[in-house]
Amino acid sequence: MTTELAFIDALRGIATHPGARGLDDDCAVIEFGGEALVLTHDAMAEGVHFLREQDPADVAWKLVASNMSDLAAKGAEPVGVLLGYAFGRDDARFLAGLREALEHYNAPLLGGDTIAAPGGQVLGLTAIGRATFRPVPSRAGACIGDDLWITGPVGAAMMGLEALRSGSGDDSAAYRRPQALLAQGQALAPHVTAMMDVSDGLLLDATRMARASALSFAIDSAAVPIAAPEDRRADALRWGDDYQLLYTLPAGAVPPVPSHRIGTARASGSAPVILDGIALTDQDRLGYQHG
Amino acid sequence: MTTELAFIDALRGIATHPGARGLDDDCAVIEFGGEALVLTHDAMAEGVHFLREQDPADVAWKLVASNMSDLAAKGAEPVGVLLGYAFGRDDARFLAGLREALEHYNAPLLGGDTIAAPGGQVLGLTAIGRATFRPVPSRAGACIGDDLWITGPVGAAMMGLEALRSGSGDDSAAYRRPQALLAQGQALAPHVTAMMDVSDGLLLDATRMARASALSFAIDSAAVPIAAPEDRRADALRWGDDYQLLYTLPAGAVPPVPSHRIGTARASGSAPVILDGIALTDQDRLGYQHG
Repeated sequence: MTTELAFIDALRGIATHPGARGLDDDCAVIEFGGEALVLTHDAMAEGVHFLREQDPADVAWKLVASNMSDLAAKGAEPVGVLLGYAFGRDDARFLAGLREALEHYNAPLLGGDTIAAPGGQVLGLTAIGRATFRPVPSRAGACIGDDLWITGPVGAAMMGLEALRSGSGDDSAAYRRPQALLAQGQALAPHVTAMMDVSDGLLLDATRMARASALSFAIDSAAVPIAAPEDRRADALRWGDDYQLLYTLPAGAVPPVPSHRIGTARASGSAPVILDGIALTDQDRLGYQHG
Repeated sequence: MTTELAFIDALRGIATHPGARGLDDDCAVIEFGGEALVLTHDAMAEGVHFLREQDPADVAWKLVASNMSDLAAKGAEPVGVLLGYAFGRDDARFLAGLREALEHYNAPLLGGDTIAAPGGQVLGLTAIGRATFRPVPSRAGACIGDDLWITGPVGAAMMGLEALRSGSGDDSAAYRRPQALLAQGQALAPHVTAMMDVSDGLLLDATRMARASALSFAIDSAAVPIAAPEDRRADALRWGDDYQLLYTLPAGAVPPVPSHRIGTARASGSAPVILDGIALTDQDRLGYQHG
């Protein structure tokens, strides 16, 4: 973990472009031809981000959806994607899911590369978007006094994964076929002071937004909508893959899309996130840290 | 092989954007903000595209250079890159080579993703460029009667790899640190009728250009400059990784950069490439077919 963080810090050291915020979960935003080009790249490895047993069509869908969600958080519309594809167990199924996802998100496949990877399948997807509103929202713009909002419930992907694992027959679509909120992101972009997608867990991603904005969020856990039984609330707040949008608005402003107010931004305090009055530390498990 | 080609054909079936020529070695070219955005993605796997024993700094260099060469063939200037990085044997060395290459090509790192890939290292790089001249050169524009040109010798990477393998101490830089010809590509773009980089072998890449342009090239093997002993000429014409630019000009036109005239374009004949009067068939080994 230390090595990994050191590597990312070193990468940040050579990411000298002013728009180069695109390491890990965030997008890069650069000026191109008088418009704002939004770029993001996600990689997924067999055995880490997906299992060999999973339906490759679902893997393809999630690869596309997670990138589209990055664009959604910038209020961007998709221009297209580039695919880095290592041949796997069932390429036809992957292709079927890819086609379905790209049609769903209206994101044409622009190009890419296919390779043999003897050690296990690794997938990469670069999504290219066009910002529909400028300045392009970032994680860093939240102001003290702002309200913190989320577009919908967390925990649905957690319940879906558990249904899949248990074979209970309960609906697993929220885990297998997550929805990126492109339309909501575009509607929100002109209004928000900060925005990001919740991919790694609400508390972890809120921590990241708080750090980027140099303030703290006081979050009321009971106000967070969950798509899970009440006794799983604590887990739902820490689970990823729901791809809701987390954003801030000036106090009292009314969101243009259905949303839930879950907290407020305060001067930087004892921790980036204060949950029900208790400061969360880095020792608390806040979400999914990418391996 | 059949499966792989079928997969790529199927991908082409969903690459519906008019600029979506970017599968495998070519770039995608799309309109964005009144300019031409040039996009390419290359993936490389340990044990296929590089060896575990190789210096990771050289691996990083080649990953960058091969993408920059794709931009060069479009007469594009680099805007930046996105990296998909699976942690490997010596991440610090990779980082050193990456930094060196990005500085050399003036291509900032805009973002990317880092992952653990238990089965072996897989790397992906997306390069973003801006076309300096429009229409952007493609492989498809060669006309009957055009001259076929190459910017420099082939075979240098082959000799470099052999030096590295034999431990002879001979210079292996051409293999380890290939040079993408960005300045030459930009100088050529306003003049060429077709252009591509030679990444997989001169005869194979000339075949691809001939097919894309729906004609045949008559190539005079003795006119092809080689950076190898004369008795290796046949190998040098089939070896990849030299990243010279291959292009066509109207008959008699004088190239703006040092180049060698190696053939002429004729009406589509018995084969896409006729070498010293002999039609080359797909059964002949023409170059490196990606695995």
